[in-house]
Amino acid sequence: MSKKTKYVYFFGGEKAEGKTEMKNLLGGKGANLAEMVNIGMPVPAGFTITTEVCTYYYNNKKKYPKELKEQVLTALKKVEKYMGAKFGDPKNPLLVSVRSGARASMPGMMDTILNLGLNDKTVLGLIEKTKNPRFAYDSYRRFVQMYGDVVLDLKPADKHSEDPFEVLLEKKKGKYGLKLDTELTAEHLKELVEEFKAEIKAKTGRDFPTDPMQQLWGAIGAVFGSWMNERAIIYRKLNNIPADWGTAVSVQSMVFGNMGEDSGTGVAFTRDPATGENVFYGEYLFNAQGEDVVAGIRTPHPIAELQKDNPDIYKQLMKIRKNLEKHYKEMMDIEFTIQQGKLWMLQCRVGKRTGFAAIRMAVDMVKEKLISKEDALSRIEPNQLNQLLRPIFDLSEKRKAFEEGKLLTKGLNAGPGAASGKIALNAQDAETMAAKGEKVILVRIETSPEDIKGMDASEGILTARGGMTSHAALVARQMGKVCVAGCGALQINYKDKTVGVEGKDIVLREGDFISLDGTTGEVIQGKLETKPSEVIQVLISKTMKPDQSSIYQTYASLMRWADNLRRLNVRTNADQPDQAANAIAFGAEGIGLCRTEHMFFGGDRITSVRKMIVSDSLKERKAALDELLPLQRSDFEGLFEVMNGKPVTIRTLDPPLHEFLPHSDEEIEELAGELNISVKKLKEKIESLHEFNPMLGFRGCRLGVTYPEITEMQSRAIIEAAINVANKGIKVQPEIMIPLVSHVNEFTLQEEIVRKVAKEVMKEKGKKIKYLVGTMIELPRASLTADEIAKRAEFFSFGTNDLTQTTFGLSRDDAGKFLPLYVEREILPADPFESIDQAGVGQLVEIGTKKGRSTRPGLKVGICGEHGGEPESVEFCHRTGLDYVSCSPFRVPIARLAAARAVVHDLSSKKKSKSKKKKKKSSKKKHKK
Amino acid sequence: MSKKTKYVYFFGGEKAEGKTEMKNLLGGKGANLAEMVNIGMPVPAGFTITTEVCTYYYNNKKKYPKELKEQVLTALKKVEKYMGAKFGDPKNPLLVSVRSGARASMPGMMDTILNLGLNDKTVLGLIEKTKNPRFAYDSYRRFVQMYGDVVLDLKPADKHSEDPFEVLLEKKKGKYGLKLDTELTAEHLKELVEEFKAEIKAKTGRDFPTDPMQQLWGAIGAVFGSWMNERAIIYRKLNNIPADWGTAVSVQSMVFGNMGEDSGTGVAFTRDPATGENVFYGEYLFNAQGEDVVAGIRTPHPIAELQKDNPDIYKQLMKIRKNLEKHYKEMMDIEFTIQQGKLWMLQCRVGKRTGFAAIRMAVDMVKEKLISKEDALSRIEPNQLNQLLRPIFDLSEKRKAFEEGKLLTKGLNAGPGAASGKIALNAQDAETMAAKGEKVILVRIETSPEDIKGMDASEGILTARGGMTSHAALVARQMGKVCVAGCGALQINYKDKTVGVEGKDIVLREGDFISLDGTTGEVIQGKLETKPSEVIQVLISKTMKPDQSSIYQTYASLMRWADNLRRLNVRTNADQPDQAANAIAFGAEGIGLCRTEHMFFGGDRITSVRKMIVSDSLKERKAALDELLPLQRSDFEGLFEVMNGKPVTIRTLDPPLHEFLPHSDEEIEELAGELNISVKKLKEKIESLHEFNPMLGFRGCRLGVTYPEITEMQSRAIIEAAINVANKGIKVQPEIMIPLVSHVNEFTLQEEIVRKVAKEVMKEKGKKIKYLVGTMIELPRASLTADEIAKRAEFFSFGTNDLTQTTFGLSRDDAGKFLPLYVEREILPADPFESIDQAGVGQLVEIGTKKGRSTRPGLKVGICGEHGGEPESVEFCHRTGLDYVSCSPFRVPIARLAAARAVVHDLSSKKKSKSKKKKKKSSKKKHKK
Repeated sequence: MSKKTKYVYFFGGEKAEGKTEMKNLLGGKGANLAEMVNIGMPVPAGFTITTEVCTYYYNNKKKYPKELKEQVLTALKKVEKYMGAKFGDPKNPLLVSVRSGARASMPGMMDTILNLGLNDKTVLGLIEKTKNPRFAYDSYRRFVQMYGDVVLDLKPADKHSEDPFEVLLEKKKGKYGLKLDTELTAEHLKELVEEFKAEIKAKTGRDFPTDPMQQLWGAIGAVFGSWMNERAIIYRKLNNIPADWGTAVSVQSMVFGNMGEDSGTGVAFTRDPATGENVFYGEYLFNAQGEDVVAGIRTPHPIAELQKDNPDIYKQLMKIRKNLEKHYKEMMDIEFTIQQGKLWMLQCRVGKRTGFAAIRMAVDMVKEKLISKEDALSRIEPNQLNQLLRPIFDLSEKRKAFEEGKLLTKGLNAGPGAASGKIALNAQDAETMAAKGEKVILVRIETSPEDIKGMDASEGILTARGGMTSHAALVARQMGKVCVAGCGALQINYKDKTVGVEGKDIVLREGDFISLDGTTGEVIQGKLETKPSEVIQVLISKTMKPDQSSIYQTYASLMRWADNLRRLNVRTNADQPDQAANAIAFGAEGIGLCRTEHMFFGGDRITSVRKMIVSDSLKERKAALDELLPLQRSDFEGLFEVMNGKPVTIRTLDPPLHEFLPHSDEEIEELAGELNISVKKLKEKIESLHEFNPMLGFRGCRLGVTYPEITEMQSRAIIEAAINVANKGIKVQPEIMIPLVSHVNEFTLQEEIVRKVAKEVMKEKGKKIKYLVGTMIELPRASLTADEIAKRAEFFSFGTNDLTQTTFGLSRDDAGKFLPLYVEREILPADPFESIDQAGVGQLVEIGTKKGRSTRPGLKVGICGEHGGEPESVEFCHRTGLDYVSCSPFRVPIARLAAARAVVHDLSSKKKSKSKKKKKKSSKKKHKK
Repeated sequence: MSKKTKYVYFFGGEKAEGKTEMKNLLGGKGANLAEMVNIGMPVPAGFTITTEVCTYYYNNKKKYPKELKEQVLTALKKVEKYMGAKFGDPKNPLLVSVRSGARASMPGMMDTILNLGLNDKTVLGLIEKTKNPRFAYDSYRRFVQMYGDVVLDLKPADKHSEDPFEVLLEKKKGKYGLKLDTELTAEHLKELVEEFKAEIKAKTGRDFPTDPMQQLWGAIGAVFGSWMNERAIIYRKLNNIPADWGTAVSVQSMVFGNMGEDSGTGVAFTRDPATGENVFYGEYLFNAQGEDVVAGIRTPHPIAELQKDNPDIYKQLMKIRKNLEKHYKEMMDIEFTIQQGKLWMLQCRVGKRTGFAAIRMAVDMVKEKLISKEDALSRIEPNQLNQLLRPIFDLSEKRKAFEEGKLLTKGLNAGPGAASGKIALNAQDAETMAAKGEKVILVRIETSPEDIKGMDASEGILTARGGMTSHAALVARQMGKVCVAGCGALQINYKDKTVGVEGKDIVLREGDFISLDGTTGEVIQGKLETKPSEVIQVLISKTMKPDQSSIYQTYASLMRWADNLRRLNVRTNADQPDQAANAIAFGAEGIGLCRTEHMFFGGDRITSVRKMIVSDSLKERKAALDELLPLQRSDFEGLFEVMNGKPVTIRTLDPPLHEFLPHSDEEIEELAGELNISVKKLKEKIESLHEFNPMLGFRGCRLGVTYPEITEMQSRAIIEAAINVANKGIKVQPEIMIPLVSHVNEFTLQEEIVRKVAKEVMKEKGKKIKYLVGTMIELPRASLTADEIAKRAEFFSFGTNDLTQTTFGLSRDDAGKFLPLYVEREILPADPFESIDQAGVGQLVEIGTKKGRSTRPGLKVGICGEHGGEPESVEFCHRTGLDYVSCSPFRVPIARLAAARAVVHDLSSKKKSKSKKKKKKSSKKKHKK
C-alpha cells in the first residue's frame, strides 16, 4: 500500500468523504452513514476506518499501517469540531460508539462498544450536561462492562458460564433487595463501576484504561479482532463470505435524547406502514432515550403533535422525510434523537409494511412519478394481493376474542379469508343447514369428492388432516372458500357429532359457532362478523361502485399495468358457471382446466355414474351414459355461455372409478336398492375396483381407452353444447384435453374417438365449429416423449400436481409423515406441491415444452396444476416460454401480477447484462488507448 | 427402360439366372428358388418375372413392357426342355404354378394359382401320367375354381358372402349324400368342372379360357393386380413397405408325388429339431401328395427307412442336407417330392426348433467349424436357456394328465420350471407341511412380504392375482421357485380352505396335490413327477459330474464363449447365503441388490421389527434396533463369506413400515400381547401408518432420514460383519445403497450417517476396510438431477421397477385392470415391467448415466430391477454403457448370454456401417475417375 493511502473517511456536517457506492471499502454501515450525511441528514459525526486496514492488520501480524494513527487523530479533531465537544474533556466530553461494518451484513456476529470516552472525570461532565447522574453512571457501568467483555475478553466463550459483570450486578441487586436493573440508583451504579474495574484488575492483572485515547485504540483492535472470532468464521462459511473482505470500523459520536426537555427521541415511517397512506407516521418522547420509547413505561406521542410541540424540528423532519423518499424512492423507517434542541438522525432503512400498504404505496409512488410502473410491480409480492381480496374479520373484534381465550388452535392457512358459521360435520348436514339460510363451516377429518356440494354450501372448510394441496385445500381455493387444513389438534367424532381440541377442555357440537381465519390459519370459538374486502365488493358482490373505493382504484391501476406488461396469459380452473364468472371478474382469459368429474356429483347424476361403473356389459354402460349426456351437455352450455368466446379446456374423466362409489354398509345397501342389484354383487364390484395405489392406477385416459364409450359420451356432450351455444350467436372455443397420457398411442386412440364423434355431431347438427384436442402432460414419460405426443396433440397443459407426485415418487396424501420435516430441515428448498420444483419437475416442463415444439412449432403450452397460481412458479413458466398459466379463480390476480413481475425481472436482468457488456466494451476501449 | 432390359429370369437344371442377392428384383421367393438351383438342388424349373415389370405395369396404365412376351416364351421353352414336358401338350402336359413374391414377405396377402395348363385335353394327359383320374379331375376343378376366384374376380370381397364354387361343391355333395370333399369321385369332380365353367360363363359372360397360354397371361396379370388389392395395401401400410417396391411373379412347373410307386413326398429337418442331435430327421410317403402326409390318413415313414426303400434318393437327400447346411450354415427344414423316380426340392427354409435344440445345434456347429462363436451366440434367444435349467415334468406323464382332463386352468408363466406338491393356503401352513417333509405348493390370492418364509418352504407358488412382476412372481424368480401368477379363474376361499376353478365342478382342499408348469403357466390337478434338468444336476444339485452330461458340456461351452465376449458384468439379487451360492454357480459376479427387509421376517426378528415400528420414543426404537443388530450382522456375515470377495450391494430399509405389521384382529391382539401394549394403541398405530399410495409414501430413504437410528443400525451391522469376515482372511467388498433418493440432500444425510458409523466401527474394531456408498436411481427426479447426486454417490444402481412405475404413473399392483389390454392391443409395444421401455424409462437411464458421469467420471452404474435379467433390456444396458446388470439367480446365465449377444450385435452393426462406408468410398472413387 502506498504512503498516500486514505485509511480513514470522515462523515458529518453537510458532506461525508464516503458514499453508498464505497460499501466494499467502508462496510455497509460506514457507507450508509456517509450517504445519510450526503443527502443532508444531520448525522452525529464520526469516521470509518476502511476494510483495507483489516486486511493489512491480518497480513501484517496484527499491526496497523503506520499512517493510520495520524489519520484517526485528524478525523477525531474534525468530529470534535462538528459536535462541539471534546474527546476526554471533563466538562464537555465527546463520547463515541465503535462498531464493526462488513461489506455484507453479519447481524450480531461482531462486537460493538458504546459510550466510549467515559472515565471518572468525564462522567461528571456527562452528569453536568444531562442533569441525570443515574443515566450517566448507568452509561459508565455499561461501557466498563462492554469494554471488559469485548476488548479485555472477559466474556465467557461458553454460554453456560456466567458473565462476571452480570454476577456482580445480581449481587448488588440482592444486597439491596431489588428485582429490576432499573431500580438501581446512581449510587448503586457508581459502586458497580468501581467493582467492575476491580474485577478487571483481578481477572486481567491490568487496570481499566482511563485514557479515552487508549480506550479508543483498544476498541478498534477488538473490532478488527472480532472478524476472526469463531462465530464470525462460521457465519462467513455458511454464507459464502470470503475472509479477505475484512471489516471496517465506524467510530461515531454518541448523542443523547435525555439531556432535558429540549432533548428527545422518536421513530417514524415516511408513510403509514399499515394503510400505505401518504402521511408521516410515528411517535416521539421528550427527554428520553430510545429504550424509553420501547420500554412502554411512558406513552409516546403521535408524530403529528411534534408540529405543535417543536415546529422547527418537525419542519426539519418533514424535509428529511421528503428527501429520503426522493433519494431512496421508498417508504423509509427512521430513528432520530434531539439532543439539546438539535436533531440527529441515527438510522434510516426501508420500512416494513402490510401487503395492503405495499400495494397502495407502490401505486401512489407511480402517480407521484417517484417510481416507474415496473418498479411498482417488482415491489409487490403477488401474494400480498390476497389482503385486498379476501373477506376479513374486524381486527378489534378478533383481538377481543383472543383476549377471551377463544383461539382454539392453528392449522395451515390453506384458503385465505375469514369465515364464521355453524359447525356441520358432514356434507349432507352442511347442505341442509345452508338450505335453511344458515352460515356453515364444514368440519371434516378430511374431504373427498363426495363432499363437494357440502363444501360449496359452506362458508369455510376446516380439516384435521391434509396439507396445502389436500383435496380440501385445492377445492376450497378453487371455490374461493376459506379453508384451514391439517389441524392436527382437532378431535373429530362423527358418531357423537362433536369436535374436541387436544389439550383443551372444550367440546363443540354440530350447530355451535366457529370462526376461521384462513389467512392466518387461526380457528376461533364463537361467531365473528366478517365482511368482504372493498375490492371484492366492487368486483363480485357489486355492492359498491368502482369510484367509491380508492382501494379498488389502486388495485385496478396495478392490474392494468400488470396486464400491459405481461406476456403469459392467465386462465382459471373452474367447473361451474358461477366459478367461471368470478374468475372473469378477476381477469381470467379462459378456462385452463374444467374437471368434468366434479359435474358427476350432485342430484341424480351420481346415481347414473354409479350405474355406469357397476355395469357388466357395454349395453348397460351405454344406457347409463345416455342418462348422463344431457346433464353434461347442459353443464358445458353454462360454461360456454359465461366464457363468451374465451377458450374452455375440458378434461375428460380422470379419477379412479372407486372414488364415485359409496363406502359405508348403509350407503352400499341404499345404492344396491337404487341400482336393483344385490348388495353382495355391489360389494364385489367395489372390492374389485379397490386399488393399492389409486394415484398410479386405473384412471385418466386409461378409463377412456378401456371404456371408449365414456369418452364418446363426453365428446358428444362438449360438441353438442358448443354448437347449441354457437347457435345463440355466442362464440365458443372448446379445447378437449385427454388426461394422464403416458404414450402417444393412448392419446391417438382417444383423439380418434373425439374426432369421430365431433364429425358425427356436426353432421347431425349441420353446423361446424372449431375445436382443439390436446393433452395433459402429467407423467414423466409424457414429457420425455413429448415430441411423439405433439405430432398428434394440438396443445399441452402441464398437470404439475401429478407430475410432481410421479417425479418425486411422492403421494401428496401421504407426504404428511415426512415432507414437513423435509421442508423444516431444508432437505428440500420448499414444499414442491406449493412452489414448483424447478430443478426436477421444472426440468421435465422444459424438456416437454422443447420436445413438443420440436415436432409442432408454436405448440400452445400451459400449466394447470396448483402451481399456476404460485408466484415463483408463474415466473418459472414465463422463463420456460409457456403460453399460459391456469389457476383457481381467486389466484388469477396473483398470477397476473406474477406474470408481469416476470417481465420486469427479465428486463432488469437484460439491463444488467447489457451494462456489463458496456463496461467490458469501455474497458476494452481503454485498453486500446 | 432400355430395350435390353432383362425382365425374365430362368431357374432350373444346374444353374439359375438369378441368385439370393437379387431379392429386390426377383422377390424373396424367386431369389430363393434361384439360389436352391445354384447350390445344386433339383428344383422344378421355372422363371421369375421381375418386380420392375410390376412397377412398369402400374406406371403405364397396366401395360407390360413390349419385350416381356418374347422373354416369357423363351423362358417357357427352357422350362419345357428341362422338365421333359410341354405346356398344353395333351399327352405330356407341363403344368405350372403362378405365385407372387415381393421383396419382403407378405404372407397370405396375394394370390396363387396352381395346376395352370389344365384343360379338357391336357387333363387326359395327366390321367395318363398319374393313372389317377380322381386326382387329375380334382386338380382340374381346383384350378378352375382358383382361376375363377382370382383371375376372373369371382371371389366375394365380403367374407360374409359365399364363394360361388363352394356353393356348387356343397350342392354336389348334398346331391350324392356325401359329407367330405374326399368322398367325391372322379366322375363327380368332372361334373363339377363343367358346372364351374358354366358358372364362370354365367357370372362373367366369358368362357373359361382353354388355351394354356391365355391362362398363363391371365394369371400373371392377376398376380400383378393383387399387389394393389385392399388387403395388400393395408398390410404394406402397417409394415411400412413402399408400394413402388412391386411384386415379382414366379412361374414354376408343378411336380406330383402321386404318379405311382416310384413317386412320393416328404418333409425333413437337417438335424433333430427337438433335441438338436446331428441326425437327418423327417418322414415320407410313397405315391402321395404333400397333403396326404399332413392329413394323417396314412402313417408316414421315418426318413431313415428311405435308405432301405430307395437308397439312391436317400443318398441324394443326404447330399442335399450336407450342402444346405454348408451353404446356409443353419438347420434347414425341407419339402421334397419324388416324381416318377426323380427327386424335386419344393422348399427349403431355416427350421424351427426347441430352445434345447437351438443351443445344442449352435454349439455343435461351432465345433464343426460351420459357424463362429459369435454366430452361435446370436442364434440363441437367451430365454431358451431356461429349458436347460428348470426342473421339468416328464412330457408323456403330463400329456397323460391332460388326456384325463386334469388341466385346471392357465395363468402367467411367472417362474419357469415344474413343481408338484400339496396345496397350502397360507404361509404358516406351508411351513408346517414342509417341516414334515411334504412338498408344498403355496396357493394365495396374492402374496406379501409376510409370506416369504412360506414361499421359501414351498416348491411352487400359485396366485389368483398379480402380473409378471407381482410380489409372488418377483420373489419366486429370485428364489428360483416355480410360479404361476394371475390365475383369474381360481376361486380361493381362505376360510373353508378350498380352491375352486371358474366353470369347473371341482373343489380342491388344502393337502390335495396340484402341479404347476411355470414354463407354460399350466395348472394341473394331481401329482406329477418332476426332475431337475441335467445342467442343474451338475451345477447345483451336484448329483452328476460335468463329464457325465453332454448337455452340461454344451451349456458350459456356450457360457464360456459368452463370458469371453461380454463387456457387462452380471450380478445377482440375493438376500440369503444359499441364494447367493446358487447365483455363483450360475456365474454371478457379485450381489447387485440385497434387500435387507427380507431379513426382517422370520423367527423373532419380526417381533423386534414391530417393536421398533410401534415405538413412541427414540429410546424405545433404539432398544428394538439393538435387538436386530446382531441378527442383521450375522445375515451379512453369511453373505460376505459366500461371496468371498465379490462385491455385495446392500440396500438399506426400503418398504413402507405398515408392510411389517399384522392386519387381522387376531394377529393384532397377539402382537399387542407380545409388545405389551393395548390393542387400541396398536390399532391406532397401524391406522396411522395406513397410506393412500404406499408406493409413493413413507418408504425408502425417507425412513432413514426420519429415523436416522435405523440407518445407523444397518450401517453398523454391515461394517461389523464385513470386518468380522475380513478378520477370517476372506476379502469383502461392501457397497451400501440408499434407496428412493429424489434429492441429493437426502442422500447426503444418509451417507453422512453411514460414514460416521463406519468410522466408529473401524475405530472400535481397530481395522479398516474399503466400502462404497451409492444410491438407487429409481425416481425420475433422481435421473434428472443425477449430476448433483453423483457428486456424493460413489455408484448408481437403476431400480427400473420403481422407475417404470413412476415414469408411467403406473402401479404394477393395479395395472391388471388395463395393462393386459394395452399390450394385447399394442398400445404399448410390450409390458414395460417385463422389458424396459427404452423410449421413456430408458431415456431416464441414459440421462441419469450421462449426467452422473458428467460430475463423477467413471461412475459405476448398474441396474437391479427385474429388467436386469430380460435379454432386450440387458442389450439396452450394454448400449447405454452401464457397468453391470443384476438379476435373480436363475436368470444370471440368461443375462450373461444376452450381454454377449449385445457385443455381437455391436460388432455386426459396426461391420455394416463399415461396409457402407467402404461402398461410399469406392463409389466416390468411381466418380473421381
